[in-house]
Amino acid sequence: MQTLLRTIYDDVKPLVGQGKVADYIPALASVNPHQFGIAIYSNQGELFQIGDADVPFSIQSISKVFSLTLAIKHYGADMWQRVGREPSGLPFNSLVQLEYENGIPRNPFINAGAIVVSDMNQSRFASPHYAMREFVRRLSGNPDLKTDQVVADSEYEFRHRNAAMAYLMQSYGNFENSVEEVLKSYFSNCALRMSCVDLAKAFNFLANKGYCSISKEQVISEQEARQVNALMATSGMYDEAGSFAFQVGLPGKSGVGGGIVAIVPNRFSICVWSPALNKVGNSSAGVAALESMTKHIGWSVY
Amino acid sequence: MQTLLRTIYDDVKPLVGQGKVADYIPALASVNPHQFGIAIYSNQGELFQIGDADVPFSIQSISKVFSLTLAIKHYGADMWQRVGREPSGLPFNSLVQLEYENGIPRNPFINAGAIVVSDMNQSRFASPHYAMREFVRRLSGNPDLKTDQVVADSEYEFRHRNAAMAYLMQSYGNFENSVEEVLKSYFSNCALRMSCVDLAKAFNFLANKGYCSISKEQVISEQEARQVNALMATSGMYDEAGSFAFQVGLPGKSGVGGGIVAIVPNRFSICVWSPALNKVGNSSAGVAALESMTKHIGWSVY
Amino acid sequence: MQTLLRTIYDDVKPLVGQGKVADYIPALASVNPHQFGIAIYSNQGELFQIGDADVPFSIQSISKVFSLTLAIKHYGADMWQRVGREPSGLPFNSLVQLEYENGIPRNPFINAGAIVVSDMNQSRFASPHYAMREFVRRLSGNPDLKTDQVVADSEYEFRHRNAAMAYLMQSYGNFENSVEEVLKSYFSNCALRMSCVDLAKAFNFLANKGYCSISKEQVISEQEARQVNALMATSGMYDEAGSFAFQVGLPGKSGVGGGIVAIVPNRFSICVWSPALNKVGNSSAGVAALESMTKHIGWSVY
Amino acid sequence: MQTLLRTIYDDVKPLVGQGKVADYIPALASVNPHQFGIAIYSNQGELFQIGDADVPFSIQSISKVFSLTLAIKHYGADMWQRVGREPSGLPFNSLVQLEYENGIPRNPFINAGAIVVSDMNQSRFASPHYAMREFVRRLSGNPDLKTDQVVADSEYEFRHRNAAMAYLMQSYGNFENSVEEVLKSYFSNCALRMSCVDLAKAFNFLANKGYCSISKEQVISEQEARQVNALMATSGMYDEAGSFAFQVGLPGKSGVGGGIVAIVPNRFSICVWSPALNKVGNSSAGVAALESMTKHIGWSVY
Repeated sequence: MQTLLRTIYDDVKPLVGQGKVADYIPALASVNPHQFGIAIYSNQGELFQIGDADVPFSIQSISKVFSLTLAIKHYGADMWQRVGREPSGLPFNSLVQLEYENGIPRNPFINAGAIVVSDMNQSRFASPHYAMREFVRRLSGNPDLKTDQVVADSEYEFRHRNAAMAYLMQSYGNFENSVEEVLKSYFSNCALRMSCVDLAKAFNFLANKGYCSISKEQVISEQEARQVNALMATSGMYDEAGSFAFQVGLPGKSGVGGGIVAIVPNRFSICVWSPALNKVGNSSAGVAALESMTKHIGWSVY
Repeated sequence: MQTLLRTIYDDVKPLVGQGKVADYIPALASVNPHQFGIAIYSNQGELFQIGDADVPFSIQSISKVFSLTLAIKHYGADMWQRVGREPSGLPFNSLVQLEYENGIPRNPFINAGAIVVSDMNQSRFASPHYAMREFVRRLSGNPDLKTDQVVADSEYEFRHRNAAMAYLMQSYGNFENSVEEVLKSYFSNCALRMSCVDLAKAFNFLANKGYCSISKEQVISEQEARQVNALMATSGMYDEAGSFAFQVGLPGKSGVGGGIVAIVPNRFSICVWSPALNKVGNSSAGVAALESMTKHIGWSVY
Repeated sequence: MQTLLRTIYDDVKPLVGQGKVADYIPALASVNPHQFGIAIYSNQGELFQIGDADVPFSIQSISKVFSLTLAIKHYGADMWQRVGREPSGLPFNSLVQLEYENGIPRNPFINAGAIVVSDMNQSRFASPHYAMREFVRRLSGNPDLKTDQVVADSEYEFRHRNAAMAYLMQSYGNFENSVEEVLKSYFSNCALRMSCVDLAKAFNFLANKGYCSISKEQVISEQEARQVNALMATSGMYDEAGSFAFQVGLPGKSGVGGGIVAIVPNRFSICVWSPALNKVGNSSAGVAALESMTKHIGWSVY
Repeated sequence: MQTLLRTIYDDVKPLVGQGKVADYIPALASVNPHQFGIAIYSNQGELFQIGDADVPFSIQSISKVFSLTLAIKHYGADMWQRVGREPSGLPFNSLVQLEYENGIPRNPFINAGAIVVSDMNQSRFASPHYAMREFVRRLSGNPDLKTDQVVADSEYEFRHRNAAMAYLMQSYGNFENSVEEVLKSYFSNCALRMSCVDLAKAFNFLANKGYCSISKEQVISEQEARQVNALMATSGMYDEAGSFAFQVGLPGKSGVGGGIVAIVPNRFSICVWSPALNKVGNSSAGVAALESMTKHIGWSVY
């Protein structure tokens, strides 16, 4: 496996830096685009890594999977009354889609859906971000995971579009808490800093029938773990979920920090990271690395 | 397996007839809703069946997978310049989506996409419907498969919405042949009559790395077969693809005739059929049967 | 004229109460639907009135014309960089329209447009609502006009949809002040209480080439007055502007409190009021009364 | 008046040729953009003209007013069950608007609406284009008006988008005849060639309470004439109707051939023509000429 990782790494290295680092907030724009790391964690607890796999980065939308998992643990199947499970189609109609479907977002991985999930967690925890961070520290076995408060504050300052969606959902009665408070928790979750190694470990329960071998806990049931994977497979990669399924064939979730996690059910959890993004906001080198893995190992679930 | 099939059949039997038979054309509206069949075909050539698994029905949108396979055989990866691979979001905006994306339909399983695929096949075959029927006869090993011309004519008579989409694509230059001719081929393909047994056999190549053990041919490459499965997984079940992935976890394709095919990669191809449809147009009993299988056997790919 | 007013009043009286009083906030829902009044004020200072023409009611969206006039006085033609002058089409796409046109609302009479106009006035006045109320007291010659604080507070409590639009405009850079502060001013303006007589007087400057004969001031230029009338003619009646032009043929502006003002250029300003609304939110009896006037007097500008 | 016409002509002359001649079909693209004419016809039968006012050009969408008038003559108020009277908002959503409103176009001046009006006339006349041309010859007093068959054929060849709309309306049951036949009539109407003088005369009945002093006939009732003017005022100028009302203040109808007709109710009918178009498809010099008239003469109806 380590040899294979080296092959893939060398294959993709020339692409690193192609694309554009996220720049909608200054704190993200200053990241060095030439970083690139891969970590693979097996259900047996083996760790394989290469490149900048120990460098922490802003996990951004990858945090949506952790929030979702926390909400599933508490609300179970009831949570699907407030958020759908369907892919979302075009980005341009995110708001009209909320209108058309009476304030129920299409899935928990579009922003509107993740904000509703944050609202669910806000109703349950006194400090939802701390609860989430503790949860992720446990899953990854890394008690030192930190929140980048500069990033969180900067996201909040430019919250307007997300605030618009939250208020629109509130107008349909699909919101329980203060929009401002929920957005603060939501942005803090996005601003968590983790390395490829941290994320490969923290996501292993999804490859392992819901069981985390690091914290020795059944995080969610086997069926629920497969369901989270199914949601990642159909909606985890922004407006590229279909192409990603087509090219890579694994459930995956990306973030604008340049990280992508992917699950090989019953076997491995993977995290690749490189900050430069393609047009739809996924890591260019990250997608290429996962395509290369699929070609070399034939991991597609399909 | 046969015992299991009996359990599932008995589980789901009480649901048969719930919902509504497709009635947008008279020829489909008169089907008896109380029919229900299941067929499973293994990569080793074993056939398991129960109920009305030998009764032919109108395959409708299931034909889109055959047309797509024919187009892939001829055009390979080039075909993706004319049709996308992303899930499509809301049904209400199918036309605005075509406008927004310059006449390129989102995927080959929405009507606009399947019509473009038919246009590709029209450019290639003198008689595209006959070519397609011969192809399917070969895959299923059944030389007697027939087209229901009454259904095909009736669909053509009520072609207006599909004609609107075809003309809109033509206005963007994404159409090569006469709209009327292409629609005739397209509706003839939809009007093919096959049984659960026929379909389970004809779809086996997608479970078997692109190889059809009945006709002894490599239909498409292993990678292409996985890609077709990926497309079914993200876009095969109308506006229920996400829920189907969530609940069943298999690539699937449904038709308004009440049939659903599903693929267990590397192992089985399945066809369930019952004519009464749920709100989004998928067979109610069919979806229930596949959910029951997933629960009993744990076939989810995720 | 007074005889004519009696004829129209008797004609329309049977329709009074048909439709539904606005009930999205409790404070409006409790209004007696059987009230009906008409006031006409001529450029020569003659007042004609009938029915409940002296009863104050919540002017609601009629206030948008006053806010617009204040903004025109200060910003002149520059203001049209931040808000358009085109009719808005379907209500369902108000948010997607803002997205499509980069946060520039179509006209100052849809909510998004009126909120941007309020934002302009917020940048200019320390207390924009008091400035507006003083302005209207002067135009109407009634120093006792009051704001219904219960209505204003209730609107603010249910501000979510308007807040969504304001935040969306802010995400496009078309907002200068705090969303919360601007909405408070906006709702206070809507909650002003005026009678038909007050409104007929306060709007007379639009019939009189921009000159208010009550306050003896040139409020805006003749050209600007005609332009405000043109905006009312194309966009003043929610999703009924076209029908209103077709049936009545006068520039008009309605509010969900049941009031409608209309302008007969160079001659009269009119206000009709009856709280029960038709499907698009205009006073049923009010529209009928204006249609009856047009039929009896031939006041259409077209 | 003739002096005034000279002033306006000299004012606007420097703008002639600015913009872009319609080029979606070759037959229109070859028109010399430097032509410019104005004709004014009074209700008393006086004719004022300047520049290229006798040169025939393709009337294009101006023909929609003639078709509408013919339909009103036959169907009266019943026709409004098949087409609306509201402005249409954004061009990008013409198709989704038809979907949202069940195949009823918003007004008779958008393409979908004009095509439905053509379908009405098709149901009534054996040769709807000849009927229309005879009607216009009578109104203008010019028996030599001709159809440019090259233009009509070319429009038909590029009919795809209009065909898409017609088929979509047919899918909603709002179409009575063959799509192909109706489009042929529709394009022939658009391809009629008339000069400014012809059009000023032919439109005079709308300024003259429905009476044509040339053919000595009451074309439609006074009320109907005002209603047609109201429709032009709210929807006659593509996506510039609001600005045109704001700047010019007259009911108007434009065509991509560069012509614009405008009505001064009870006094004059006007036609200006210059082929170069602004961004929304209205004659640049034509709009400027009408703005200049409004400034010099104060003809705004508002």
